[in-house]
Amino acid sequence: MHGMARFFVSPEELSGSFLTLTGENAAHCKVLRIKRGDTITLCDGGGHECQCAVSDISPGQVSLVVTGRETSQTEARLMVRIYMAFPKSDKLEHVIQKATELGACEIIGFPSARCVSLPDAKSLERKLDRWRKIASSAAEQSGRGRIPTVRVLPSFQEAVADAAQAELSIIFYENEHQRTLSSLLKQAELLQSVSILTGPEGGLTPQEVQQARDAGLYSCSLGRRILRCETAPLCALSAILYAAGEF
Amino acid sequence: MHGMARFFVSPEELSGSFLTLTGENAAHCKVLRIKRGDTITLCDGGGHECQCAVSDISPGQVSLVVTGRETSQTEARLMVRIYMAFPKSDKLEHVIQKATELGACEIIGFPSARCVSLPDAKSLERKLDRWRKIASSAAEQSGRGRIPTVRVLPSFQEAVADAAQAELSIIFYENEHQRTLSSLLKQAELLQSVSILTGPEGGLTPQEVQQARDAGLYSCSLGRRILRCETAPLCALSAILYAAGEF
Repeated sequence: MHGMARFFVSPEELSGSFLTLTGENAAHCKVLRIKRGDTITLCDGGGHECQCAVSDISPGQVSLVVTGRETSQTEARLMVRIYMAFPKSDKLEHVIQKATELGACEIIGFPSARCVSLPDAKSLERKLDRWRKIASSAAEQSGRGRIPTVRVLPSFQEAVADAAQAELSIIFYENEHQRTLSSLLKQAELLQSVSILTGPEGGLTPQEVQQARDAGLYSCSLGRRILRCETAPLCALSAILYAAGEF
Repeated sequence: MHGMARFFVSPEELSGSFLTLTGENAAHCKVLRIKRGDTITLCDGGGHECQCAVSDISPGQVSLVVTGRETSQTEARLMVRIYMAFPKSDKLEHVIQKATELGACEIIGFPSARCVSLPDAKSLERKLDRWRKIASSAAEQSGRGRIPTVRVLPSFQEAVADAAQAELSIIFYENEHQRTLSSLLKQAELLQSVSILTGPEGGLTPQEVQQARDAGLYSCSLGRRILRCETAPLCALSAILYAAGEF
């Protein structure tokens, strides 16, 4: 268990043969009852990892000796970006936590026509801060080498333009009855990047879906059952990573 | 929106050309602001559906005229049963809701060695009742034709024996580094039934995994990231239904 404990630090804090953990990380070591001689992993959140042995513990500081360095082995080869129209209450937090565990590389919130809950400019900074903490903590717990980026875009139009930059961009729409996800993923093992865009509780408008298609996104459904707005991106992410050969 | 409103009734309540909704269903119609002339669907939860036109609304009673009957079109062809070791607090509720949306046919709770939270016999009946209501309500909202069965088994051994009856039975184990899910699902489109078994927060013990293997379950991982106990079954269910050609 302790061998798997994992802490994110800044890239500078990873240089040298003798490292220290302070602040929240040191407090977290105490919670995990980490003791002298235990092995832990430090990670810069950008894919670089250090295996360390705990050499000393004093109040607020844990001293470490580096025993090995490597590139993170737990990141998905396929970069999946999740574009999610702002849902109500804590649903976005749920999606950020689960999408991080599952292996998404980015989670991007944006407003759409039927959003019932839009974060105002004032609370947005505080919320972004909270969302990034959730991503960081979920990345630690799931053993990821990178912390997914969490960001927001100011309009549906910008979300679509951003999503369209991936090799394959998909908008999920319950009224799309022709195209299946599997038809889009026939070559999934060769793909480098996929964007998926999903709507809020009330769904996307036909105009929004058309706007996305015009920008080059493929519309497709997630089957014959109606998924909640927080379930759709996680179902799609699971299927895409499966199709890409992740498990 | 109203055309998609969906109510579960007992099979007897579906017979005849003139039907009525009472009690909770009538109250729910009021919440949904259903009015005379609207079209709704009644479903017996066993795959039989009735399309109805609302002919009259009085306090506590909604009168309906049957306009069509059919077999539900929204059920997954592949029957997936989810065996989940009792997790803490409300995580099982979360899994029941999401697994129902995604299309599971059964959700089965059971105790395992590392479960930190076991429902006692006294509270179990109350909890089962609550879990079944969650499944029923999620089935309604997602447009399913069947309400998944929710049940519990008294031991790990019985859960394994029950799971082993499916055509393909899988136990997810983070220390299984050889077999992938995709290697088990090469013929997924031909399968009729799959069982998936997952552990509690602390994971399954090596002994439990061996016991399951001895009973005929295949052990396999869900990739290189460590998933929370409530994320694993939903990730697996999404991937399995995708592999089976559902979307």
